[in-house]
Amino acid sequence: MTIEGGEFGIIADLLAPLAAGGAFGLTDDAALLPELPAGQGWVMTKDAMVAGVHFLPDDPPDLIARKLLRVNLSDLAAMGAVPCGYLLACAWTPETTHDWIEGFVTGLATDQAEFGIGLYGGDTVSTPGPLTLSLTAFGTAPRRSLLRRNGAKVGDDVMVSGTLGDAALGLRLLQGTLDAAPEHAVFLGQRYRLPQPRTTLGPALVGLAGAAQDVSDGLLADLGHIAHHSGVGMEVHLELLPLSVAARECLVERPDLAQLPLNGGDDYELVFTAPPALRERIMETAATTGTPVTRIGRVVEGSGVSPFAAGRPLPVKGQGWQHF
Amino acid sequence: MTIEGGEFGIIADLLAPLAAGGAFGLTDDAALLPELPAGQGWVMTKDAMVAGVHFLPDDPPDLIARKLLRVNLSDLAAMGAVPCGYLLACAWTPETTHDWIEGFVTGLATDQAEFGIGLYGGDTVSTPGPLTLSLTAFGTAPRRSLLRRNGAKVGDDVMVSGTLGDAALGLRLLQGTLDAAPEHAVFLGQRYRLPQPRTTLGPALVGLAGAAQDVSDGLLADLGHIAHHSGVGMEVHLELLPLSVAARECLVERPDLAQLPLNGGDDYELVFTAPPALRERIMETAATTGTPVTRIGRVVEGSGVSPFAAGRPLPVKGQGWQHF
Repeated sequence: MTIEGGEFGIIADLLAPLAAGGAFGLTDDAALLPELPAGQGWVMTKDAMVAGVHFLPDDPPDLIARKLLRVNLSDLAAMGAVPCGYLLACAWTPETTHDWIEGFVTGLATDQAEFGIGLYGGDTVSTPGPLTLSLTAFGTAPRRSLLRRNGAKVGDDVMVSGTLGDAALGLRLLQGTLDAAPEHAVFLGQRYRLPQPRTTLGPALVGLAGAAQDVSDGLLADLGHIAHHSGVGMEVHLELLPLSVAARECLVERPDLAQLPLNGGDDYELVFTAPPALRERIMETAATTGTPVTRIGRVVEGSGVSPFAAGRPLPVKGQGWQHF
Repeated sequence: MTIEGGEFGIIADLLAPLAAGGAFGLTDDAALLPELPAGQGWVMTKDAMVAGVHFLPDDPPDLIARKLLRVNLSDLAAMGAVPCGYLLACAWTPETTHDWIEGFVTGLATDQAEFGIGLYGGDTVSTPGPLTLSLTAFGTAPRRSLLRRNGAKVGDDVMVSGTLGDAALGLRLLQGTLDAAPEHAVFLGQRYRLPQPRTTLGPALVGLAGAAQDVSDGLLADLGHIAHHSGVGMEVHLELLPLSVAARECLVERPDLAQLPLNGGDDYELVFTAPPALRERIMETAATTGTPVTRIGRVVEGSGVSPFAAGRPLPVKGQGWQHF
């Protein structure tokens, strides 16, 4: 490592101020999670990111930190859990500077404040390979009514939060394979680098949504998980997918990318199913949580996800990312 | 990735059978931890390992898996927690074969049975760099009487489980910088590759030990954490350190390595402090848990850890590993 102060200096100076109460200032071998009210349970998830695979090596370090946190918070939201804290493992490279780590920690601190969470421990090691990060996030949810993937029923609505395709377009802009007006480029790049986990909507959907999942691999792939685990089929309509103004502007110029909202991935929106009888309550929930929700299709008998365009079956390119 | 069947095939075929009840067969975005009796809390820890840094790239994959699990279980034991489960992130390389992963999963399954724990989720990604693994383990302990680093009191005994220096000697044997009789080489190599986390002794020390920590960075470095966080000094005596027969045989031939039991690291034994009045109860606990415990020094006023040899201060080489 080329880090000034060595590993203990970094922990003491930079990471310890991020520590939650039960983390004992990161001075011990492990941390103690807070006590829960009866009926609440701990929900846990873990995601890893590798430089050059899951983020661009020259992305700003604070945004890398925030994306790492947010992709995990998105998993918690998909289960209906309110985030509480996280553990972090960082494999620094010989090129990782003290300034870079400071930027990374600033990003963590920003999102800890944004989402009301704290650091509960972790590990820092060195690697000769690319910078590698892993984060375990945990939150609380009612034990008996978690949002799961297996609860979709024939006749349910299929709904999605926010807009789709922005992140996939943003990645192409950052990679230089797509052009856009500067204001759109900024917006779409931000959607790739800084996803907005639906941490308020997710817990509010407990008791309403039958099945839920976050869109990380692409809408079709992730809806496919719900369909598979629920034993149902799905129909979704390309022209009903919610698009941002920036995405619309790009897609007008680049019709070859028209399917990105279906299979682009990295959206970190919530896709979920619910009985039509709850449609009004869901739209009220969307309003009170400040999260747009759009109905994009329905649950049908059968299996798999069938995309339609103009009412006709749409052959789809690619498979989206696959991870668990 | 060059893995047959792709990532979902690996999860379904190899990892899903390892899943604990609350992990929903790894089909969802996150897992639900079990319900706890009143007064019990969740204790969590996270460690990362990089090929070529924390293990030898040609180590058998089942032993790599088991070591990854065990170094985390050792952290839980040091807090007095009974292990329950874990989440796992694996960054496979282009060279990682299906056979290798099968071996790795076999190791996980072996130690899941050995320690009565289950898999609660995680992530598999690909990396162009060295194989990188990260594991978050959690267990249960009484909320109000966790073993901490800050509870050592002047006059306390300093005690350690098992034997010290074996793993550091084993690493040198595996690296070819040390020779030993075949039976000793096997034993010491195993002590490096397959540490024995003190998961029975740790929880049994709750209410007895004032402070505890596992020995991963080396006895002096880890005792130093207890001394620092407790605001005390420590004296330990080289000739009182517990040594295996194999270590003794090596050290007779190589007196230049005599300090390895003090600063070699990777021991994953528990070092702890306790009032002399509890000495008998601790020795009974050692007997009932089948874990040897040896008194190696005492807690004194002042700061830092002072090693002695033949009653005289011993200047010590090196600092051991540093991680948190």
